[in-house]
Amino acid sequence: MNLLAKLPGLGPRSARRMVLHMLKRREALMLPLIAAMDAAVHNVETCVLCGNLGGNDPCEICRDPRRDRSIICVVEDVADLWALERSHAFRGLYHVLGGTLSALEGIRPADLRIDSLLERLASGEVKEVILALNATVEGQTTAHYVIEKLEDTGVGITKLAHGLPVGGELDYLDDGTLTAALQARRKTG
Amino acid sequence: MNLLAKLPGLGPRSARRMVLHMLKRREALMLPLIAAMDAAVHNVETCVLCGNLGGNDPCEICRDPRRDRSIICVVEDVADLWALERSHAFRGLYHVLGGTLSALEGIRPADLRIDSLLERLASGEVKEVILALNATVEGQTTAHYVIEKLEDTGVGITKLAHGLPVGGELDYLDDGTLTAALQARRKTG
Repeated sequence: MNLLAKLPGLGPRSARRMVLHMLKRREALMLPLIAAMDAAVHNVETCVLCGNLGGNDPCEICRDPRRDRSIICVVEDVADLWALERSHAFRGLYHVLGGTLSALEGIRPADLRIDSLLERLASGEVKEVILALNATVEGQTTAHYVIEKLEDTGVGITKLAHGLPVGGELDYLDDGTLTAALQARRKTG
Repeated sequence: MNLLAKLPGLGPRSARRMVLHMLKRREALMLPLIAAMDAAVHNVETCVLCGNLGGNDPCEICRDPRRDRSIICVVEDVADLWALERSHAFRGLYHVLGGTLSALEGIRPADLRIDSLLERLASGEVKEVILALNATVEGQTTAHYVIEKLEDTGVGITKLAHGLPVGGELDYLDDGTLTAALQARRKTG
């Protein structure tokens, strides 16, 4: 129970309910879950190139010959990589930083996978790096740091657009988003 | 009670509570409210130029000599105009369409203030029209219609940027927003 309660989104009460639920279904639920977690421990690997999690190293994305190897999309976490994959909007490669710079949490540049990004750019094959970091303070601080680091490589650096989300109504949006959407307005047609 | 329940955000139950609350405070609340509503009925005017609501016609914004008269920002409703004013991001003039095209609700182009927008552009003083319509299906349909109508005027037409809202995290955004943010990515620095 104490271990379950440490998982994100769970507290002591929900952990207790889960344990009771599992103990009632030992054969049907608990044993398969143990097997699946055991398999995950031994089989899920971190891709040495991009930092993605999967059954192979290098991962399926890095090995896919149909993907555009001249664009690398930099994300904070594997969850963000998966979110972009779900959208089917990107056909290049990824690079997972593994977090954001944070003085509060003691996360320094050396804790992020920035050096391995620079190594991947050394070959000259990559023409564009897209910084797909969250539009949070931490994400944007990290973006600034990465931009500085990449300045000398000569690779093109782009950022995700900021503006109205799909379905966004002006009256319900914060001032910062409205300001960003106005400043980044674009010609139609 | 029945009349109050027709207001947006209220139902029969909340209307009943409000009526009882007011009846208990006739002098302190109900009479001042009646006076304020009566004043609003007689004093709030619709600006003949932009469609804003206020104490004057033309409204304070249209009369303000410090505002940039070469840019008109087109919004759906007065609420959107006020949202943009709160953000302090825009110093030009506005034009309130008064809604969006909707086959379902029977709102046709003639029901929107499009002709009066064309009239305002006729003088040649306006150089840019910003379409600040909601990122909803109705808003974007209306934007397309207005773009077509303005094509022959020669005025520059821009749209609010679509992308990540401030504070937006990739993992929690919908696919459409992620796709828009990727497609509209911009050079840094």
